[in-house]
Amino acid sequence: MCQKAIYPGSFDPITFGHLDLIERGLKIFDEITVAVAVSLQKDPLFTVEERFNMVEQAVKHFDRVTVDRFDGLVVEYAQKKKISVIMRGLRMISDFEYEFQMALTNRKLADDIETIYLMPSEQYSYISSTLIKEAASLGADLKGFVPRFVEEALKKKFKKK
Amino acid sequence: MCQKAIYPGSFDPITFGHLDLIERGLKIFDEITVAVAVSLQKDPLFTVEERFNMVEQAVKHFDRVTVDRFDGLVVEYAQKKKISVIMRGLRMISDFEYEFQMALTNRKLADDIETIYLMPSEQYSYISSTLIKEAASLGADLKGFVPRFVEEALKKKFKKK
Amino acid sequence: MCQKAIYPGSFDPITFGHLDLIERGLKIFDEITVAVAVSLQKDPLFTVEERFNMVEQAVKHFDRVTVDRFDGLVVEYAQKKKISVIMRGLRMISDFEYEFQMALTNRKLADDIETIYLMPSEQYSYISSTLIKEAASLGADLKGFVPRFVEEALKKKFKKK
Amino acid sequence: MCQKAIYPGSFDPITFGHLDLIERGLKIFDEITVAVAVSLQKDPLFTVEERFNMVEQAVKHFDRVTVDRFDGLVVEYAQKKKISVIMRGLRMISDFEYEFQMALTNRKLADDIETIYLMPSEQYSYISSTLIKEAASLGADLKGFVPRFVEEALKKKFKKK
Amino acid sequence: MCQKAIYPGSFDPITFGHLDLIERGLKIFDEITVAVAVSLQKDPLFTVEERFNMVEQAVKHFDRVTVDRFDGLVVEYAQKKKISVIMRGLRMISDFEYEFQMALTNRKLADDIETIYLMPSEQYSYISSTLIKEAASLGADLKGFVPRFVEEALKKKFKKK
Amino acid sequence: MCQKAIYPGSFDPITFGHLDLIERGLKIFDEITVAVAVSLQKDPLFTVEERFNMVEQAVKHFDRVTVDRFDGLVVEYAQKKKISVIMRGLRMISDFEYEFQMALTNRKLADDIETIYLMPSEQYSYISSTLIKEAASLGADLKGFVPRFVEEALKKKFKKK
Repeated sequence: MCQKAIYPGSFDPITFGHLDLIERGLKIFDEITVAVAVSLQKDPLFTVEERFNMVEQAVKHFDRVTVDRFDGLVVEYAQKKKISVIMRGLRMISDFEYEFQMALTNRKLADDIETIYLMPSEQYSYISSTLIKEAASLGADLKGFVPRFVEEALKKKFKKK
Repeated sequence: MCQKAIYPGSFDPITFGHLDLIERGLKIFDEITVAVAVSLQKDPLFTVEERFNMVEQAVKHFDRVTVDRFDGLVVEYAQKKKISVIMRGLRMISDFEYEFQMALTNRKLADDIETIYLMPSEQYSYISSTLIKEAASLGADLKGFVPRFVEEALKKKFKKK
Repeated sequence: MCQKAIYPGSFDPITFGHLDLIERGLKIFDEITVAVAVSLQKDPLFTVEERFNMVEQAVKHFDRVTVDRFDGLVVEYAQKKKISVIMRGLRMISDFEYEFQMALTNRKLADDIETIYLMPSEQYSYISSTLIKEAASLGADLKGFVPRFVEEALKKKFKKK
Repeated sequence: MCQKAIYPGSFDPITFGHLDLIERGLKIFDEITVAVAVSLQKDPLFTVEERFNMVEQAVKHFDRVTVDRFDGLVVEYAQKKKISVIMRGLRMISDFEYEFQMALTNRKLADDIETIYLMPSEQYSYISSTLIKEAASLGADLKGFVPRFVEEALKKKFKKK
Repeated sequence: MCQKAIYPGSFDPITFGHLDLIERGLKIFDEITVAVAVSLQKDPLFTVEERFNMVEQAVKHFDRVTVDRFDGLVVEYAQKKKISVIMRGLRMISDFEYEFQMALTNRKLADDIETIYLMPSEQYSYISSTLIKEAASLGADLKGFVPRFVEEALKKKFKKK
Repeated sequence: MCQKAIYPGSFDPITFGHLDLIERGLKIFDEITVAVAVSLQKDPLFTVEERFNMVEQAVKHFDRVTVDRFDGLVVEYAQKKKISVIMRGLRMISDFEYEFQMALTNRKLADDIETIYLMPSEQYSYISSTLIKEAASLGADLKGFVPRFVEEALKKKFKKK
């Protein structure tokens, strides 16, 4: 079978941690669809267009990766796209509990979709978009955490404020 | 690509939790090799032959599953079999930390092997081989935790003692 | 002694997880008072009247359960009602730490009140009001998570928005 | 109803943490049976007689507490004694996961028995029998951790070795 | 060498837990600079002036403690002050994960700064500024959690609201 | 003041994780005494002489580090040596709980000794002596985990078996 996976997230913004995960996913899956969530529980720093464009730019060197956006439940999106695997990263305990809840909820909502977890490289295990936004707001140099153009975008956002 | 995965473990003994995981894995992978570890850190209750035979019997109704045994490092076994994905279950926080350590160690030992994690059905999330052996040693009825023939094998073991 | 317990919470909204806990509590206590918190740290989705009414409707088939609302500290409410036991559910690690802090703080504030914890059925262990509101906002079918009338109330809330 | 509870454990040996829990339990239950496990997974330091005797001596000033020993599953013991509540302490995350597994397993084995959890006083939250044996083996002064006669018993044990 | 440390935080408001940590730090370091963060991710209850003044008043009886405020990254502040050690408290698992992320991020931003952790007295291990504000908003008596003048300041804040 | 610290452990065997910690400690303390525990709860792989000698060889290029062995309680050893700071590494949650228990126990045993924690480099955060022995027993190549001569010692040990 040709196995495809969806990698959903808010990507606010995309980090080297996300890119590491996509690269690992490509060893397992034939195609990966990075799915940018339109509606988020917390107000994002970047608009959905900005988040989508940054993901597109960051993954353009990968052959078998496409970028999409989705609104509503990720399992319904997966069913519509006829992709039965959701791929997620696991970094820390706090991730684990949230992911555990989500996986079991999604399973109850759509029994045919399976979620798998990958662990990032240890050098990215402590990077989160939240931490990066916090550091950026304080003027940190984010080389080594995010691609150059994401760094620029973060700087602009926090200058405006 | 035809994607195969190895599901390594001690399977001392195999439980409904393991079988649930194999079933989920078959939605993602074309073939799964259940690999029974010969050498274990702690003395197992069942010999490697017993553990292997119980796994074989438990998975014989699955089409795309084979059973094997391995000695030494699982990543070396994976490389020898030319299978680049290891599949593991994640039930609890304590699992998570151990798996995290193992995944990063394995990655350092063999960069080409990727480990993925699946979450069991919530009804099996609290079952472990250790707990089952503990309950069996106290005379518990294990229907709903392990296949019938494993239940019998456990009863025999604890009668002998 | 006739033992009574208070089951305090925000119930925003009440879920099958809460109802499972109340049923378990009734095996231990003669009477349970479900106490709906008026003031919450985070803005609730439902008003205190709505939350109170949904709890009342959800527990009306239980004989020994009453519903009340309270403002301020739960330990002061307990002292006023002359009920010395607070009952809480424990689902996950993150619950545990928060509950641990609250229990020790409450004990310091009111030494005569004891808090006890019950674990929900594994099928409800991953359900939280927060998750349910998130899923409802994305249009999920919540059958199996909350009573029918709570489902309707959630749908109305998110239509209005 | 007259509510009774069983407080099962290995009590190898009993500590101030256990005694604190029993005192808290007496605020909630009419009677508590401290049930000393005969068979343990790990070899105990003290024989079951020694453990039983130390518990008896430690709780003799409590009116509504009885001490017993049990072999096999705690839920079967509870059913035989017609006591439907098991009481346990929760100190730390690692406790939590083990207790979670046990509670769900026990519930599957005996649906009519409920387990409740109490949190010890913060001054005892870090005390465990394991830690105390470790400290005793290194010659620590255990005043403030265990009753005087337990201290003496520990000293004797480690002198003999 | 004369070893100095920075103890950074939001101190919104300072608690007995913070003061316990400072006292412990003084056993290790010659001088401690308590550094009050000007910019916070979440809106503080108290202004930076109020937070700074409360810290000053709370530590005035300590000889080798100075109070300062900083804006931006704590590692840049440390470099500017030529102090190479940051001191933090660790109370709970949730602290641990956040601190772990921060420590590794700070290390990447400034390799010459080291972060060390101290554990508070068990009687303060469950106290956090967040919990205290929550309790204060509900009218709790905070004696034993914060200095008297902080208690007064909290009361005033919540009366105004 | 000239600040000294004790870094106690079993060092069975010493790893790059321990060495990373010692290097970080030297930025904070004037002198570090690496204290090898003679008596361990679990049987060590290496004798105390072997463990001591490996530590000595591993730290000989550090100027301000001495190696010693101790029997009994680390706090009594610290008091005898007139060193009031104990230094430990914190890698994971499971470490955290154990260290928390030990720190509070040690504090009760010896109020004048303070324990501080450092976090290892992320590249060593998942390395433990236990994991390394497990990997070595399975024939893993341990370059990057332990010094070359420790690797040789591990190989010899597992050949003998």
